Amino acid sequence: MRMRNKPWALDYLNEHSDIVDTDGQRVGQIGEWFDDDKPIHIEIGSGMGKFITTLAEQNPDINYVSIERDKNVMIRILDKVRDKSLTNIKLICNDAVDLKDYFKQHEVERIYLNFSDPWPKKRHTKRRLTYKTFLEIYQYILEEDGEIHFKTDNRGLFSYSLESMSQYGMYFTKLHLNLHEDEPSDNVHTEYEQKFSDKGSRIYRMEARFHKK
Amino acid sequence: MRMRNKPWALDYLNEHSDIVDTDGQRVGQIGEWFDDDKPIHIEIGSGMGKFITTLAEQNPDINYVSIERDKNVMIRILDKVRDKSLTNIKLICNDAVDLKDYFKQHEVERIYLNFSDPWPKKRHTKRRLTYKTFLEIYQYILEEDGEIHFKTDNRGLFSYSLESMSQYGMYFTKLHLNLHEDEPSDNVHTEYEQKFSDKGSRIYRMEARFHKK
Repeated sequence: MRMRNKPWALDYLNEHSDIVDTDGQRVGQIGEWFDDDKPIHIEIGSGMGKFITTLAEQNPDINYVSIERDKNVMIRILDKVRDKSLTNIKLICNDAVDLKDYFKQHEVERIYLNFSDPWPKKRHTKRRLTYKTFLEIYQYILEEDGEIHFKTDNRGLFSYSLESMSQYGMYFTKLHLNLHEDEPSDNVHTEYEQKFSDKGSRIYRMEARFHKK
Repeated sequence: MRMRNKPWALDYLNEHSDIVDTDGQRVGQIGEWFDDDKPIHIEIGSGMGKFITTLAEQNPDINYVSIERDKNVMIRILDKVRDKSLTNIKLICNDAVDLKDYFKQHEVERIYLNFSDPWPKKRHTKRRLTYKTFLEIYQYILEEDGEIHFKTDNRGLFSYSLESMSQYGMYFTKLHLNLHEDEPSDNVHTEYEQKFSDKGSRIYRMEARFHKK
């Protein structure tokens, strides 16, 4: 998701450094950033933030971290966190490749990947968030039984991800090839998902774990 | 696939015991049944036999075995084998659960599963040909690098199979969530596939291998 550049965005984010990390101030100390010791769930690429702020509202016993690299998008998430006065969510304005710096090994219980950039061209395969180098990062920061929850409307990205993740040594549960046709009652829509569902597009979803070595 | 019962079917099959095994005469001797030592590819549930007889015609360097338990269906496959004078295909009229009796360990290079019965009811899960007890049989008879090629129009069976096979320790390649939209030139249609494709239904496909232990 790309937004028009807002020159004031960085200043606004930095005014709320209790909620947002903009340049690695919290590296290696995400757990300590929260006041308590609840399980940590993260979303990589949060878009406008409806999904993760809704979850944070619904699940006060989970601590959420939203990773979004575009500061012009991040201000919209920050707005929602402040509007709802949420205390169980923190925001990291950075790229997914640096996640191992932020989190300790096995510190994360769950990762959400929602409607990630499909990077459809073959020469961009390495940028897809389910390419093996990213899976290696997820395996490092996730608990042994940790889960990745993946949702997309992009058929190519979904089939690629099933190949890449199974080849890496992951397995799937709760796999849906048309999510909205028999939708689980606890499915929280992203802004993007709502728009695509209204148009009748198929949404694909699965949960994935790493096989124990 | 069910066909009307034909009282003469068994007699007709038994007249051609050089091509068909009807009651286990070839148990443990499938390799010896062929005149030569080519790689063995098998199809479990061959329906009317268009798929496997077409492959046998196109690939004289492969030996094919068709497993079909319904003798009223098997006669149609036998007809095709005789009409085309194929010498690189044998037929087994039996259930998939007995495959370990017929084949030696690692004797098979590839298994085809085409439009298998979806057994949609939960209490029938164990009958699906991608249930773990069947995967264990496939792992036994397949070479270490052997492949399963799986095709279906049934969304429920496909998502179940992705879960079951990945949980067992398999991985996927060449995964298609809408096969006929970008169809590989070497895709051979079954009778059933042609009918469903003409109606515009989606066909799902993947190739799967076992992770090395």
